[in-house]
Amino acid sequence: MQPLGVALVGHAFMGRVHSQAWRTVGRVFPHERPVERTVLAGVDAARARRAADELGWRDATDNWKEAVLRDDVHIVDICTPGDSHADIAIAALEAGKHVLCEKPLATTVAEAEAMAVAAGRARERGVRSMAGFTYRRVPALTLARQLIQEDRLGRVLQFRARYLQDWLHDPDAPFSWRLDRARAGAGALGDTGSHLIDLGQYLLGDTLDGVSAQLATFVDRRHAPDGTPAQVTVDDAAVFIARFGGGTLATFEASRFAAGRKNAIQLEISGTKGALSFDFESMNELSFYDATEPSGTAGFRRILVTEPDHPYLRAWWPAGHGLGYEHAFTHQAHDLLTAIHDGTDPAPGFEEGLYVQRVIEAVETSAANAGVHTPIATS
Amino acid sequence: MQPLGVALVGHAFMGRVHSQAWRTVGRVFPHERPVERTVLAGVDAARARRAADELGWRDATDNWKEAVLRDDVHIVDICTPGDSHADIAIAALEAGKHVLCEKPLATTVAEAEAMAVAAGRARERGVRSMAGFTYRRVPALTLARQLIQEDRLGRVLQFRARYLQDWLHDPDAPFSWRLDRARAGAGALGDTGSHLIDLGQYLLGDTLDGVSAQLATFVDRRHAPDGTPAQVTVDDAAVFIARFGGGTLATFEASRFAAGRKNAIQLEISGTKGALSFDFESMNELSFYDATEPSGTAGFRRILVTEPDHPYLRAWWPAGHGLGYEHAFTHQAHDLLTAIHDGTDPAPGFEEGLYVQRVIEAVETSAANAGVHTPIATS
Amino acid sequence: MQPLGVALVGHAFMGRVHSQAWRTVGRVFPHERPVERTVLAGVDAARARRAADELGWRDATDNWKEAVLRDDVHIVDICTPGDSHADIAIAALEAGKHVLCEKPLATTVAEAEAMAVAAGRARERGVRSMAGFTYRRVPALTLARQLIQEDRLGRVLQFRARYLQDWLHDPDAPFSWRLDRARAGAGALGDTGSHLIDLGQYLLGDTLDGVSAQLATFVDRRHAPDGTPAQVTVDDAAVFIARFGGGTLATFEASRFAAGRKNAIQLEISGTKGALSFDFESMNELSFYDATEPSGTAGFRRILVTEPDHPYLRAWWPAGHGLGYEHAFTHQAHDLLTAIHDGTDPAPGFEEGLYVQRVIEAVETSAANAGVHTPIATS
Amino acid sequence: MQPLGVALVGHAFMGRVHSQAWRTVGRVFPHERPVERTVLAGVDAARARRAADELGWRDATDNWKEAVLRDDVHIVDICTPGDSHADIAIAALEAGKHVLCEKPLATTVAEAEAMAVAAGRARERGVRSMAGFTYRRVPALTLARQLIQEDRLGRVLQFRARYLQDWLHDPDAPFSWRLDRARAGAGALGDTGSHLIDLGQYLLGDTLDGVSAQLATFVDRRHAPDGTPAQVTVDDAAVFIARFGGGTLATFEASRFAAGRKNAIQLEISGTKGALSFDFESMNELSFYDATEPSGTAGFRRILVTEPDHPYLRAWWPAGHGLGYEHAFTHQAHDLLTAIHDGTDPAPGFEEGLYVQRVIEAVETSAANAGVHTPIATS
Repeated sequence: MQPLGVALVGHAFMGRVHSQAWRTVGRVFPHERPVERTVLAGVDAARARRAADELGWRDATDNWKEAVLRDDVHIVDICTPGDSHADIAIAALEAGKHVLCEKPLATTVAEAEAMAVAAGRARERGVRSMAGFTYRRVPALTLARQLIQEDRLGRVLQFRARYLQDWLHDPDAPFSWRLDRARAGAGALGDTGSHLIDLGQYLLGDTLDGVSAQLATFVDRRHAPDGTPAQVTVDDAAVFIARFGGGTLATFEASRFAAGRKNAIQLEISGTKGALSFDFESMNELSFYDATEPSGTAGFRRILVTEPDHPYLRAWWPAGHGLGYEHAFTHQAHDLLTAIHDGTDPAPGFEEGLYVQRVIEAVETSAANAGVHTPIATS
Repeated sequence: MQPLGVALVGHAFMGRVHSQAWRTVGRVFPHERPVERTVLAGVDAARARRAADELGWRDATDNWKEAVLRDDVHIVDICTPGDSHADIAIAALEAGKHVLCEKPLATTVAEAEAMAVAAGRARERGVRSMAGFTYRRVPALTLARQLIQEDRLGRVLQFRARYLQDWLHDPDAPFSWRLDRARAGAGALGDTGSHLIDLGQYLLGDTLDGVSAQLATFVDRRHAPDGTPAQVTVDDAAVFIARFGGGTLATFEASRFAAGRKNAIQLEISGTKGALSFDFESMNELSFYDATEPSGTAGFRRILVTEPDHPYLRAWWPAGHGLGYEHAFTHQAHDLLTAIHDGTDPAPGFEEGLYVQRVIEAVETSAANAGVHTPIATS
Repeated sequence: MQPLGVALVGHAFMGRVHSQAWRTVGRVFPHERPVERTVLAGVDAARARRAADELGWRDATDNWKEAVLRDDVHIVDICTPGDSHADIAIAALEAGKHVLCEKPLATTVAEAEAMAVAAGRARERGVRSMAGFTYRRVPALTLARQLIQEDRLGRVLQFRARYLQDWLHDPDAPFSWRLDRARAGAGALGDTGSHLIDLGQYLLGDTLDGVSAQLATFVDRRHAPDGTPAQVTVDDAAVFIARFGGGTLATFEASRFAAGRKNAIQLEISGTKGALSFDFESMNELSFYDATEPSGTAGFRRILVTEPDHPYLRAWWPAGHGLGYEHAFTHQAHDLLTAIHDGTDPAPGFEEGLYVQRVIEAVETSAANAGVHTPIATS
Repeated sequence: MQPLGVALVGHAFMGRVHSQAWRTVGRVFPHERPVERTVLAGVDAARARRAADELGWRDATDNWKEAVLRDDVHIVDICTPGDSHADIAIAALEAGKHVLCEKPLATTVAEAEAMAVAAGRARERGVRSMAGFTYRRVPALTLARQLIQEDRLGRVLQFRARYLQDWLHDPDAPFSWRLDRARAGAGALGDTGSHLIDLGQYLLGDTLDGVSAQLATFVDRRHAPDGTPAQVTVDDAAVFIARFGGGTLATFEASRFAAGRKNAIQLEISGTKGALSFDFESMNELSFYDATEPSGTAGFRRILVTEPDHPYLRAWWPAGHGLGYEHAFTHQAHDLLTAIHDGTDPAPGFEEGLYVQRVIEAVETSAANAGVHTPIATS
C-alpha cells in the first residue's frame, strides 16, 4: 500500500519531538498504511538538510510551499512559530493535505478564524485538520476524561489548572521569539495557558462563558543571545477566573516564573462524587478521590497509569514501566492516522483551536479592563 | 506570683481547642506568672457548667458580661460566633482586660473598625489585643516567614493560597450558623479565606491593593439538624486574584466543596531566588526550593520542621516527633503571655484583623460587580 | 468519686510526654473516675521537685519506693532507663499498683521473665500491667490493624519494617546511657527495633519463629558531654530477616545513622488482597492498596486518618486537623484507664513485652553466629 | 561510512524495547557511523519475519547462528531467555562481533564464567561485550553515582535496595518460562534482584563479601496459558542481608508479590555526609539529603532529573519534560556505540555480569543453609 507521506515544517524543539513521533508511531501502533518521512522544510536550506539527516527525513527544502504541494505528501505537520501557522495551514488544506498544526493555533483570533474556515471547507473534501494540544494524549489525562465521562466525579463544581515553569526566572535568560508579541501572539498565556484552556474543554466537554483576568510581566527588558537589548511584549504570568457554561467555577494560571517548577501542569477537579488531581512532573500518575467510598477508607488514590487497560498503554511496556513526554506525540500521530484511515475528524480540530484563541483574547481584554468579566466571543 | 486569670467565652470547637492550649501552655513554655482557667461563659448555664468540668475551668456562667468584669480575670478569650465578637471584645477592653479574639474578627467592617478603635484606646492603657489567626504559629509557616525575611526567596513575584475543605460536599450536610450570613458574615471566604488573607500579610509583610473576585454557592438550600429547611446565604467557594502593594501577583481560593481535601491550606510562593510550598495536611513539612543552587542538584527540599532550632520546637519533642493542629493554639497562648509580660503588642492585632475584614468586603464587592478590580479600603 | 492517683517515675523525655498525656486524657476522653497526678519520683530531690512543678505533679520525691507504696497512688508509670524497670515494676505490682512500663520492658530476657511472672500474679488480684509500645495507638496504625483484621489484605505474605533515625549520624554526637549496653540493653535494636517487633505482633496478630540478623556499630567511641571518652557497647544499626509463624516473610531494620530520617517508622505490608504503607514522618496518613479494585482505577490511596470514625479521632478535632506524636500517649493512658475501669487486661501486657525481649536476644545471638537462623525462645 | 549492522536475537518484550532503542539512538545522539537494523532472529521463521516488519529490521531468520556470522553484522544483541545467552554470546564473540547481552547474564555461574572468559579473549582482539543492566542509565541513577563519586554522601554506611512488582500476586496468573528454574535460572532473585546487585556495584563501586538470605515461593503451582499445570521452581521473593567489602551494611529484596507496586526499584543509601533516595515509579526524580546543610533548612530535596546538565539529558527535551522506561535502553545503545568507536570497554562487562551471578548463587546457598552468612565466590 502506498505510504502516507509527511512534510514537516519547522525543525526546532517541536520539529524534533514530532520527528521522534513519526519514526515511532508505525512501530508501536499497527497501521495498515505505512508512514513516510518525506520532506522537512526550514527557512535555511543547509540547516534544513542537516536537520533532515539528523532527524531522519528523506528530502529537505527551504521552501515550505513546495513541500506542501508535493504529490507524495499527504500530511503537513506544522511546527513553526505561531505567526506562520495560518499561511501554511491554509495553503496545505487548500492543496488537499491533512494538517497537524502545533498550538496555539495562531497569534490572533482573526487568523484562527480563517484557519477554521479553511478546515471546514477541507473537511467537506475529506481532508482532516488537527490542533496539536498534545497533553490530551498523556494517558493519565485521557484516563481523567474517561473517569469524568463515566460520571465518577458527579457534577463537576470546580476546575483548577496551573501550568508552571521557571525558565524566565533568571533575569539574564535570553530574549527569544517567544517573548515577542508579534511572533508568539502571547506569552505564558498563549504558550502554556493555551494547553490549560484546551484541557478544560477536553476534560469537561464544556466551554467557558467568560473570564476575569490579570497579566504580569515581571522582567520587561532582556537581551538576545547576540547581546541586542529587546523589549518583552508578552505576559510572564497570566491568572484568570472563569465559569464554564455548565456552571463549573474555574481558575487558571500560566507562569514562567515559578521557581523550581519545570513543566508542572497541575490540575485539581472537584465534583459532587469525587475529585482528580494531576501534576505533569509525575506524568504517569493520576490521583483519584472517590467520595462514594466509606469515609474510613476514602483517600486520594495514586493510580499508576501504566496498566494495559489504560489509554494507549497496551501498545507499550508492562505495568510500571512508565512513559515520557514524547509519547503523547506518538499517540497524537496515531490518532491522526486512525482518523485519516477511518474518515473521521480528529480532535481537537481547528474549531477547538479557535475557541482557545478566543479565550486568550478575552483574557487579554479583561486584563486590560481592570479584570472585569469578559465574555468569550462566539462566531 | 498572682496568676493571670482567663475567661473563656464560648465552648464549642474553638473553646475546646483553646482550653487544651491554656492547660498546656504553662507546662511546656516556662512563664513566670502562672495561668488560671478562671471561668467559662456560655449561653446556657447548665451546659456551661458541664463544659467547664469537662474542659477544666473553675467557674461557669451564662453571663459573659459578668465573667468579663471579674477582678480575677485578666484575659478574655473569645470563641463565639462572629456576630458577638465586637460586643464582647469592646466590653472586655474597656474593662481593662487583654483580649484574644477568634477570627474572623467580626462579621462586618464596621464592627471590626469599632474593635480596632477600642483596641487602640486600650493599648494606651497597656491592655493588649490579639486576633486568633493561629496558622501563623504552625512552625512550618513561622519558618516560611523567617526564610522570606532572610531574603531566601529574593523578590516575591507570586503568592498562591488555597484553603480546601469538603465538609459541605455532601448536599445532605446539615445547615449551621456558619452558613448564615447574619451570624457568620461570610462563608468559606470569611471562615477559611480569612486565614489565607492573614497569611499573605504575615508571610510577605505586605498588604493587598485590590481584588478581582468570584463567589459561588453550589447548594443554596439545606436542612437544619431538626429538619427545618434553611437558605444558605453565604459563599461555598470564593476565588480571587489580587496584587500586593509591592507588586506580588496573588491568587486565593477558599472552598468547602473540594472533595477529598479535609483541611488543606496549600501555599506556593515564588520569588526571584527561591520558592516555598506548604500543605497543612502535612503540617510538619515545608518545601523550599533554593534557586541559587547549581541546577544539577537543585530541587524542592522537604524540611521536616521538627528540629530544636525551628520555631517553637525547642519546647517540644525530639526531631521527627511531629506536632498536631492544637499546638499552634498553645503557641498563640504562649505568644500572648509573652507580650503581656513584656508589655509589647502581640501580632496580629485588631488592626490586622480589620484589614482582613476589609479584604473580605472588597472581595464581595468585586464579585457583585462582575469581578472588576476593587481596591481595599484604608481608614 | 475518689481519683486514681498516678506516680510517675522518671522525668526526662518520656516523663515529659507521659505528663502531657496524664494532663490531657481526662479532658478529652470522658472517664468517670478522675486522674490525679499525685507524685513524681526522680533520682535527685531538687530536680524532681522542679520537674513536678513544671510538669504539674503535686508531690515530688527522690525515693521511688516510697512513691510506689503510697495509699493514694493507684497507677505507677515507669519512665526510667531500662535497667531499673524490673525492680520498680515488680515492687509496684506486689504493692497492688497498676503498672505502665516504658519499652523495651527490660534489658535482659531474665528481667522481662521476672516481670511477666509478677504481672501474671498481679493479674489474679485484678492488678493490671501494660508495656508502653505507644505506636500501636497512632490512629493510622490502629486503623492498619483493623483493616488487616477485616481481611482487607487477605493472607499477609510480606511484612517490612524500618525505624530510621539519624541522631548518631554526627560522629561528634555525645555519648549517653542509650549507648551503654549495661543500662540500655541494646542500641537501635532495643530502643526503636523493639517498636517494630511489637508492631509486627500487633498488626499481624502473629509472632516470629526465628531470625537471621546482622548488627553494626559504625562509630564505636564517643565522648560524654563532660568530655570523657566512652566505648559504644550497643548496635548503631540492626537488620534482620524473619518468618512469622503463619508464614509471612519479614524484614526489619533499625538504624540511628539514616541521614535525613528523623523518626521514620516505615512499614509496607503486602497481602493477597491488598497492601498497606505507612511512614511516621507523615503520621496522620495511611496508604492502602485494594487489589480487588479494577486495575484501571486501583492505586495506593492516601487515607488521611483524621475522620471521626477513625480510631480515637471522635474525641479530637474535625477531619484534616491532624494529631501529633504525643497524642498516642494520651490514647495509651485512655486505654489503660478503660481497662482498669472494665477489669480487663490492657494490651500489650508484660507477656508481649517479654516476647519482644526474646526476639531482641535471638537477633543478637544470630548476629553473633554469622546470621544463622535462630529460633525465638518460648517459655 | 559503512554502517554498523546489528543482529537482534529474540523479539519478545526485550526485543521490542531494544528495537525502539536502535531506531532512536542515532537520531538523538550524534554518532559518526550510522547503525543499521540488519537482521532479527527468532525461533520461528514466520513470526520472526512479522516481528522484523513490525519493529523495523531488514532481514529475519529462524537461525541465530547464521545471523551472528553475517559479514554485515557487527553487533549481536541478545534478548532471549537466560538459558541461551551463553551459546549465542560465545559464538558471537568468537565470530568477532560485539555483544550486548540481556541480564541476568546466564542461568548458572558456570555459564557466566565461560562467557566472561570468552569476553576476555575477545577484548584482546578489540571486540566489546556488555551486560544489559539498563537501570544504570536511568539519568537519576547515573546522577546518584556521580554524587557518590563526588563524595556528597561521605562514607556510605547503609545501602537498601528493593525491587517490588506484583504481577504474580494473582494466584491465577499464568505459568511462564520465568517461573521455570531450568530456563530462567532464578525467580525474582535473578530477574529483578540481579538489577539490584548490579546497582550496588555500580553506585558504590564496591562488591559484596557475603550474604545471609531467605527465599520464598508463595504459590508453587500454576497453569500454563493452555491449562497445563506446572510447578513453580523459582523464588517468588528473595530477601538478603549483606556487607560490602568497604563495610557498607546492605539489605536487598526482590518480590513479585508486592501488591500495588508495579516496577518499584526503591533505593535508600545513607552516608556520613548525606543520603539518596529513589523509586523507579517516579523515575525522573532523585531525592538527595545534604547533611552538611544547617539543620534548619536541611531536607530531602527532590531533584527533577531533567536538566540539560544531568546525564544524557542534553540530547533530549527541555527541563521538566520527563523521560520514560525505554530511554535507558537508548542510552545503553549510545554508550555501547561510543565504546566501540573509542575502542574502550563498555560497562558493565561480562565480568560484572559474572559477579552478579555469583551473588545470586551465594544467596541461594545461604537460603538453603538456614540463612548462614555465605561468602561470594571469587575466581
